[in-house]
Amino acid sequence: MRAMSPSIAADPDRLMPVDPAARSVARTLHALVGGLPIISPHGHVDAALLEKNERFPDPATMLISPDHYVTRLIHASGVPLDRLRVGGTVAVEPRETWRSFCAAWHTFDGTASGYWLRSEFVNVFGIDDGRIDAEHSDETFDAIEARLASAEFLPRALFAAFNIEVLATTDDPLDDLAAHRALAADPTFAGRVLPTFRPDAYLKTNSPGWAQRVETLVDVAGDGLTGHAGYLRALENRRAHFIANGAVSTDHGSRTAQTLRLDASDAEALFDSARRGEATEADADLFEAHMMYQMARMAVSDGLVMTMHPGILRNHHTATFAAFGPDTGHDIPVAVDYTNGLRALLEDFGTAEGFHFVPFTTDETVFSREIAPLAGFYPALYVGAPWWFLDAPDAMLRFRSAVTETAGFSRSSGFIDDTRAFASIPARHDASRRTEAAFLARLVVERRITEQRAAEIIVDLVDSSPRRVFKL
Amino acid sequence: MRAMSPSIAADPDRLMPVDPAARSVARTLHALVGGLPIISPHGHVDAALLEKNERFPDPATMLISPDHYVTRLIHASGVPLDRLRVGGTVAVEPRETWRSFCAAWHTFDGTASGYWLRSEFVNVFGIDDGRIDAEHSDETFDAIEARLASAEFLPRALFAAFNIEVLATTDDPLDDLAAHRALAADPTFAGRVLPTFRPDAYLKTNSPGWAQRVETLVDVAGDGLTGHAGYLRALENRRAHFIANGAVSTDHGSRTAQTLRLDASDAEALFDSARRGEATEADADLFEAHMMYQMARMAVSDGLVMTMHPGILRNHHTATFAAFGPDTGHDIPVAVDYTNGLRALLEDFGTAEGFHFVPFTTDETVFSREIAPLAGFYPALYVGAPWWFLDAPDAMLRFRSAVTETAGFSRSSGFIDDTRAFASIPARHDASRRTEAAFLARLVVERRITEQRAAEIIVDLVDSSPRRVFKL
Amino acid sequence: MRAMSPSIAADPDRLMPVDPAARSVARTLHALVGGLPIISPHGHVDAALLEKNERFPDPATMLISPDHYVTRLIHASGVPLDRLRVGGTVAVEPRETWRSFCAAWHTFDGTASGYWLRSEFVNVFGIDDGRIDAEHSDETFDAIEARLASAEFLPRALFAAFNIEVLATTDDPLDDLAAHRALAADPTFAGRVLPTFRPDAYLKTNSPGWAQRVETLVDVAGDGLTGHAGYLRALENRRAHFIANGAVSTDHGSRTAQTLRLDASDAEALFDSARRGEATEADADLFEAHMMYQMARMAVSDGLVMTMHPGILRNHHTATFAAFGPDTGHDIPVAVDYTNGLRALLEDFGTAEGFHFVPFTTDETVFSREIAPLAGFYPALYVGAPWWFLDAPDAMLRFRSAVTETAGFSRSSGFIDDTRAFASIPARHDASRRTEAAFLARLVVERRITEQRAAEIIVDLVDSSPRRVFKL
Repeated sequence: MRAMSPSIAADPDRLMPVDPAARSVARTLHALVGGLPIISPHGHVDAALLEKNERFPDPATMLISPDHYVTRLIHASGVPLDRLRVGGTVAVEPRETWRSFCAAWHTFDGTASGYWLRSEFVNVFGIDDGRIDAEHSDETFDAIEARLASAEFLPRALFAAFNIEVLATTDDPLDDLAAHRALAADPTFAGRVLPTFRPDAYLKTNSPGWAQRVETLVDVAGDGLTGHAGYLRALENRRAHFIANGAVSTDHGSRTAQTLRLDASDAEALFDSARRGEATEADADLFEAHMMYQMARMAVSDGLVMTMHPGILRNHHTATFAAFGPDTGHDIPVAVDYTNGLRALLEDFGTAEGFHFVPFTTDETVFSREIAPLAGFYPALYVGAPWWFLDAPDAMLRFRSAVTETAGFSRSSGFIDDTRAFASIPARHDASRRTEAAFLARLVVERRITEQRAAEIIVDLVDSSPRRVFKL
Repeated sequence: MRAMSPSIAADPDRLMPVDPAARSVARTLHALVGGLPIISPHGHVDAALLEKNERFPDPATMLISPDHYVTRLIHASGVPLDRLRVGGTVAVEPRETWRSFCAAWHTFDGTASGYWLRSEFVNVFGIDDGRIDAEHSDETFDAIEARLASAEFLPRALFAAFNIEVLATTDDPLDDLAAHRALAADPTFAGRVLPTFRPDAYLKTNSPGWAQRVETLVDVAGDGLTGHAGYLRALENRRAHFIANGAVSTDHGSRTAQTLRLDASDAEALFDSARRGEATEADADLFEAHMMYQMARMAVSDGLVMTMHPGILRNHHTATFAAFGPDTGHDIPVAVDYTNGLRALLEDFGTAEGFHFVPFTTDETVFSREIAPLAGFYPALYVGAPWWFLDAPDAMLRFRSAVTETAGFSRSSGFIDDTRAFASIPARHDASRRTEAAFLARLVVERRITEQRAAEIIVDLVDSSPRRVFKL
Repeated sequence: MRAMSPSIAADPDRLMPVDPAARSVARTLHALVGGLPIISPHGHVDAALLEKNERFPDPATMLISPDHYVTRLIHASGVPLDRLRVGGTVAVEPRETWRSFCAAWHTFDGTASGYWLRSEFVNVFGIDDGRIDAEHSDETFDAIEARLASAEFLPRALFAAFNIEVLATTDDPLDDLAAHRALAADPTFAGRVLPTFRPDAYLKTNSPGWAQRVETLVDVAGDGLTGHAGYLRALENRRAHFIANGAVSTDHGSRTAQTLRLDASDAEALFDSARRGEATEADADLFEAHMMYQMARMAVSDGLVMTMHPGILRNHHTATFAAFGPDTGHDIPVAVDYTNGLRALLEDFGTAEGFHFVPFTTDETVFSREIAPLAGFYPALYVGAPWWFLDAPDAMLRFRSAVTETAGFSRSSGFIDDTRAFASIPARHDASRRTEAAFLARLVVERRITEQRAAEIIVDLVDSSPRRVFKL
């Protein structure tokens, strides 16, 4: 594996603008932020990974099987998901899954996932990305396997090597957050690993098992209250538990962007009918819209930042969902209406002191039409960074182009990586920083901002924005 | 304030393409139009400003308080609107408002408003934009104040210095247009200041005071007719009054893009129920769609150009509307459907001799999908220039890219500045001219048009298009 | 006509990137595919044109009158369609139609049609594009007329000169395909001319004459069955007839993207009510959605590739439709919902072995939001190349930018020209190849793919993708 040729993933000019003058400015800007610590205020890494600090199992189980960004494209090329050990299936050995990945690797060219993976291979594992192919799959499997067996590839060692300062996880409201507490109490671990309150499964009355989950929630945390009042109280109490364990934000994957001011008796009636299993799909939407409003109300009161990413049709392919569970690559975006949807929430809380609300989107059409105009007026609303299918270089440039002329840079949430792929975190943040540099460099060369201001702005975007918006 | 360093706002290459070859072509193209007179066929400057020719009150009252493009971003950064003297409020002195603006100035980097303001500071007022900050706010306030006290900063002097040839205002149908007549009759004033017929408040049956306004309208101009017939007659008569005073166009801020062929009795019934205060929101939409159709019918008959900019949810934040009135920064776009919406109008009038119809949009998604295809077939329909949140360099380039390949250049309305900020007019038109040059230069370097044709096209876009489309 | 100056249409760098480094890479990539044979898996050329191999009638009848891409823009500039001999009208002589075109030629600058036409004039007919204007219209008419009279401009000679290997036509299900058979049997003709099964007129129950057409269909091919069962059987049989004559795909211009799993009795009921003339517009939509599902079911069984291009409001201007028929320039796109619409089809057939489904769109907003995510999961779904108003250089670059980061290159359909303008085929394919080279070159210079992989990818996109996706 030695004597590898220099990879594009190690090229210092990757993602820099094509034009030499812009590239030169972009290099200077990137140099200001390339070494700053990583602040990751939203993602899906498990706190227990860091708390236990056990070695990663094997290359396929670490890098392929749990990452639906990756398995989806291999699936599209014709490989069944059980050959990728998705959703806990074990039809084949990890080495076989790795072979499937290597054989499909060429289909990742030009994709965001391919960019991150290549960077991981080269910059994290130090292997030759030219040998990721069917012919050398055993060789690369063994090479990564050897790295994973060493102490420097243990989760905490990587956490330090990645220069992560803050890492937010995503957690069930009833999680006791023991792993987070253990990490915070551990004097040998310097990072901040913060829980995020993610109550989707308790707010979607049509999700399987909702009534049972809610019963447990109210029993555990309802202070003896029952019904809708107990439900709200329990959610407030669990938010407080999260805050006590370091949480700074809540996260909501609502179906639509709708928010709704509902009077107490109507809310109670919807809640009760849902508990009796009588809620229609429309009722479920109404109740979720009501709860988005309630989450904002609670956030104004307890100070948690509220993030929201609506507009995804989850589990598009029912057969795959039945066989492999959720988060298996077929959550597909739909159009969103933020202007009407968020109105109730913003009318009542959009100017509330200290309230921070961050909507994300996978519907690019709302960047210039809705999100930038809203963020350009409401002090509470910050423009969520490009998320999911859009957290890629071209999409991030389209985002900046669409948002900046209306909302400027100060209304940005800062980058979020939203990843469950721990080893991809540095590549994702670096790609974002390079893209910000590329965008700002163009504005400098077009004489729209001064180079000095561009330098201040990129540091603010990379470092200060996430601290400010997420109250870190 | 002397010895200021050269500002990016004075850089001759601002907004020029990054690539040197394209930049060189763009410079040549811009040189052809940079000095042409300004033709502004749609905007919100008050004719009385020029008729009275009184000095502008002070920097804050001139540049900040009335411009919701500007106040919105300061508000988003946390400054209440009364500190910006919005909507006639006087909670603080103008100098204090100026301080708030200066402290928030850095948030305007990269925005359209920031680009215009910087250009005004440097190119109109000759002050150092490097001193627009909290520390120097009194200094810059005083500097601008000193300019405003001089004769060369009186409205008419600026009008001449700006090289404005035509300036259209936006006026209430019952306006007697005395200021316009006075200007036209004044031999010392060379410009053309034309009224625009803007009947929104008379067409939206759910706008506050509609019934009373309509009663006055019919009384004043209905030729003794009553009901719906009197209403239509009165509108026709007031259009004639506007034409007699130089108007060339009508302007319509309809809620949706819907147009509707309604038979007389249905129209009458809707009208009557609205006068009785019984109209629902849906009725109001129907009636407005009917009136858009009627406005087109009248335009075919009297020759006024019809412009339309639907798809805005006005006064999104009710509390702000209640405290500060309309046009205070929270009119937010929504998605529009032009293809179905405009069908009735275009079926009946889209090929009518001499009819000019100009739809604008803040929903970029219709550029390539709907507006360019419609303008590429219907002789009456001209593609409205990027409007409002989209009248900024990147958005204008996206517009040209999305529209040109289907509709070419000949179907363009020409630039409109739509501004109430008088001092921003030169910067807006110059930004548009530079952006047209940048777009055309790229096509030249890509060998898609010849440089000679690009030269003809840019002159046509800047000078001939607005004259032709707006019948000037 | 001699001594013409070099035209931009002959410039070897046309459509190449502006930046010199990217341009250099793009040239190298284009050189790899510039000479490859043309594979055209979807278009509207008539097989009889090649079978009869008669000379083209005259320049206007060949290049202008039948091409609604071209006539639409001339119409928009104010020329009635009968002066363009549209829809079989003969109000003027062809030479007069040519004059109208030449007078409007300047309005084609920057458009896709203008690009193709210029290329045809220069690269196919060898005439000076600088003389396409009102003054020289007779001269250019005569020059092209002279070419058309020569043997080298007969259809088969052009077919060979264009280096076309495969050309798919679009055909009525009841077409006997005699022209295709004759061509296949002719040893002097080397190309493959394949029929495409296009049953729109048999699936849209609200299209004029539907019931009569369906009666004929069932009589001719229903194997004696009647009703809905006979109808399905007849369609299956005609698909088999098409396959026997070389067809590889079916094509569907459905109104929406909706697909629907309907049980037999509901389908039968809809079918019967439509035959009685009792179907509403909503019924027609339901039935079409049902038939899209059935077409997919049949495709899984018989192996025909299924292409679909929904989201067009056909015949927007009723008066023009009445006078000149369909395909006369006023089919206007509307927004589409693929995520929900295609769900039934994809749930049941999206992972079916060997099924190939290619959705096209004129709604750019679905590229990143819906189509790329769907193609990035479902093995059956390939991303249709930019179609119709979007098959132009800038739109193709936006397409690649929007799709690639999620779906990569391997999920692409390959280019389709969709044209009825035979002489435009080389220019269209060449424009696509240049644009692919430009896009890939940027990724190379941004160090996102290696130059070696870019070389492999462009050959795959141009040559292997259409063969693979369309099973050629």
